[in-house]
Parts: sequence; structure tokens; C-alpha cells
Amino acid sequence: MKKLKRSGRLVDMTYFLLQHPHEVISLSHFSLRYHSAKSSISEDLVIVKEIFEEEGYGSLLTIPGASGGVTFIPRMNNKDATELVDKLISQLSDPERILPGGYLYMMDLLGNPRLMHEIGRLFASVLADKQIDAVLTVATKGIPLAYAVGHYLDVPVRIVRRDLRVMEGSMVSINYVSGSSKRVQTMTLARRSLTPGARVFVIDDFMKVGGTLKGMVDLLEEFDADLVAVGVLTESVGVEERLIEDYISITRLSEMNIRDRTIKIEAGNVLDKVENQQP
Amino acid sequence: MKKLKRSGRLVDMTYFLLQHPHEVISLSHFSLRYHSAKSSISEDLVIVKEIFEEEGYGSLLTIPGASGGVTFIPRMNNKDATELVDKLISQLSDPERILPGGYLYMMDLLGNPRLMHEIGRLFASVLADKQIDAVLTVATKGIPLAYAVGHYLDVPVRIVRRDLRVMEGSMVSINYVSGSSKRVQTMTLARRSLTPGARVFVIDDFMKVGGTLKGMVDLLEEFDADLVAVGVLTESVGVEERLIEDYISITRLSEMNIRDRTIKIEAGNVLDKVENQQP
Repeated sequence: MKKLKRSGRLVDMTYFLLQHPHEVISLSHFSLRYHSAKSSISEDLVIVKEIFEEEGYGSLLTIPGASGGVTFIPRMNNKDATELVDKLISQLSDPERILPGGYLYMMDLLGNPRLMHEIGRLFASVLADKQIDAVLTVATKGIPLAYAVGHYLDVPVRIVRRDLRVMEGSMVSINYVSGSSKRVQTMTLARRSLTPGARVFVIDDFMKVGGTLKGMVDLLEEFDADLVAVGVLTESVGVEERLIEDYISITRLSEMNIRDRTIKIEAGNVLDKVENQQP
Repeated sequence: MKKLKRSGRLVDMTYFLLQHPHEVISLSHFSLRYHSAKSSISEDLVIVKEIFEEEGYGSLLTIPGASGGVTFIPRMNNKDATELVDKLISQLSDPERILPGGYLYMMDLLGNPRLMHEIGRLFASVLADKQIDAVLTVATKGIPLAYAVGHYLDVPVRIVRRDLRVMEGSMVSINYVSGSSKRVQTMTLARRSLTPGARVFVIDDFMKVGGTLKGMVDLLEEFDADLVAVGVLTESVGVEERLIEDYISITRLSEMNIRDRTIKIEAGNVLDKVENQQP
């Protein structure tokens, strides 16, 4: 790359940091890339850090010294998190979304990559300091959420399957009871998906009783992996006995009357957690 | 937002443009955001444009005049595209990936959100000027690729299902012949997923005969939607009769000997298309 002025370096550096979240970048990397002294690079990073932190895009952790470096930790501040949750509440509060069985039509929202990214950033913000190694979800509707979180945490995504048509070598299967239908079902994950001791975030789009999520949590035990947290886009209240007690929810379906076609959506518990993790 | 100097504006503007690909942003938006004159904003954008275009991150289209604006079109230049394809070839060329039936184990790569993003940017680069309205894929393994492309093109993702357990209201189903197993299977897409005339990019992870992709193309007709292009991460050669003739492939499995456990991977046709679309 040719030698750049500060203005050019700031554009390129911002681009680079956004593409490499949670990765330690040495000052030498930037110094070589821009043919600039480390002291100039350090001054650039102060400017980037100030904007990122004031605007709530995330934190820029700097490791001082000759072998020092910088890490971009994506976060979302309280204001943006509240705006995002409010936007979701408004979109989910449409009675047309009511589906048989007390489910909500959400595929239009789940099909929006930019919205998934925003939700992924919100989860990644809450999980930023939890040393997550992998995100686990179940096919199909949890997948876009899982990838968005995985993107911002820079960790792999592992997908549990409910079919057995899968060609991924040796597989681990468990039976679980689907909370709503009370039927015994099977879920499967490739043996090489998780290493023992891996710290895992489990995510899905919707939780009623939590049978599917509980199945994934049980499956983690088969891999000797550790559950760090469970997340859902929408939890449904009014469930007699929930199988998952500790979780992060973005929104909450607090009332649904299928006959009258009325629906009430409110904020999940994520906003408390965003507040708690602010420095 | 408080008034910023040029250095701060450049960081924030770069962040904002990356979060809003393919969207027209008015100069007034930035002018109000930074309490700066439009002339200063225009000068800032010249700096951003220069870096983005020199480094091959994408183009910055500016619409001049009082009501003017700017649009960031993510692209990937030839050098980065070649590096990405070479990296994939090297990772895919491991004989341990050979699975029964002539398939390749790719879940580790498909499970890497950053790699998916790079591949998504490469597809989005080739498709940048094609006015895509939606990306269509089939559950499960095409989903991460579809979302990465959808992210960079800023268009929704629609997911075809092979099960019938789906609760998404009215559905459209077709039967198709799986190219490899020659069995008749069913695929289903929610009626409200695509509007007539929508311009659609169809993507999947792997293509042998192309039966699944052909099924998705046929399904588009049921929606009166238009096929713009088909993309795959890996195509397998040595197929007698391919059902899809025109497609974009990132890599090509040109030889696989299951008994000797040898494998040969080469570049797909995407690199020709990257060259062709450079300005």
C-alpha cells in the first residue's frame, strides 16, 4: 500500500478494524501497511477510539508497549439497543403475524440481513467479555441470528440438525422432548463440531417451553462443552413450566389471543444486561 | 452528534457507509449529523472514495447537486478475489474431506462467519450491477452464504425448505428430482416470500448434477420471479448431464478418488467474472 496521510489512514484503519472484530492487531501491522511511524499510528488510533466509544460502536482496547496492539470489541450502547428493541416491538406487534399453535410469523424479519446484523451486534455486546468459543443453533430459523452473533464475536457457528440426511462424518445424537408438541424428537451434531471445554453460546429464534433449547444444552454435555448463555429473539410468556431459566431475550410475546387476533409484544430482558455491561 | 473535525468525520462516515451498502445517503444526512457544510462533506467523501476504490473495498457512487448523495457498492478487486479463491483451494484440498457419495466435508468452512462474509463480498461484487431483489437458498448449508451475499447487496434472503413442518402461512411446493439420488423430493417456499417480477439470485454450497438448484429455479416460476444468476461455493465436475448450465462457482472439485483418497480442487469461474466487471 502506498504511503497515506492521516485522513486516508483513518478511513482504511476503520475499514480494517470493522472487518477484524475481537482480533489483536499489532501496531507494526498498521505501521508497515501505511509506511508510518508507530507514534503516528497510535495518534490515529486515539481518534478512532474516541469516535467508536462516543458513538457506541464498540471499544478499542489498546495494549501499550513496543509489542502493543489494538482490538476492536463491537458493542451497542443503551440508546441504540433501546431503538432496536423498540423497532422490533413495533414490527412484531402486527396481529397478521399470529400463526396456528401460538407461534409468530417472523420469517420476514429473520430474512433481513441488516436487521440480523443489528441483533447480532446487540447479543455480541452483552457477550463481549464472556470468552465465547462457538455459537450453537438449530436448523433452520436460528441460523441467521447465530451467524450475525458469530460475525461480531469472530467465532465459528455450529448447526444442530433435526434430520438424519446429513453427511458430516461421525455424528452425536440425542433425543429430546419438544416442549410444545410433547413428542420425542432427535437432534444431531457432527462429532468434530465442538472440542471439549469449548465455551458455547446457544441461540434460537423463538422460545415457548424451551424444549429445543434444552435439547441443545443437553447435547453440549455430550461434547463436554460449557454453556455460557442462551439467547432468543422472542420469548413467549404464559408457559407453565419453562425448561430454560437463565436466558437473554430481545423481545417478549406477553399476550396473544388467537380468536380475537390480538397480540402484545414488549422488550425482553436484554436491555437490563446492556445497562449492566456498560463501563 | 457533536461537531466533529475532518478526522472524526472520516472515521464515522466510513463506519456508517459500511453499515449501509447499496443505500443512497444524502449529503444532508452527513451535513446534519456532523454540523458541517455540504462542501466539507463532499471533500470528506473524496477521501473515502479514493481509499475504497484504491484498496478494492468497493465503489462510492456520488450523485452531484443540491439533492445529491452517495452510495457505497461493496466490491472485491482481482487481487483479493484470487487470494480468497487460493485460500479456499488450499483448505478444500485435504483428502480428509472426502465423504461417502462423492461429497466434500465443508461444514468447518461454512461455519466460519468471517470466511462466509468474504465469499459473500465476492459474489456481491460480481452481482453489484444486476439489480438483485432477493437471494434464495435451500436449508441448511446454503444459508450462511445467502446471508453474506444478502448483507453486501442489502437485499432479503428467502429460504426454501425440504420439510413440511413449517409454520409460515400459505406455502408453494414443487416436486423435483434430486440429481444424485434420483429420488423425487419436495421443496417448499412461503407464498409471501417473493413478489412477482422479483429479480432473484439463487445460491447453494455444492452442485453436482444441480437437481436442487434446478428445483429452486423451477420454484421461481411459480412466483413469476426472475432468475438473475445461480451461484455455488463448489461445483463438482465429471457429471454426465448438468441441469444448470449458467452459474458462478468459486471453486471446482475436478477430481476425487474415494479409494485412493485423492482430491483435486481448482478455481471456479468466478475469477473471470471479477475481471470482466472491473471498471
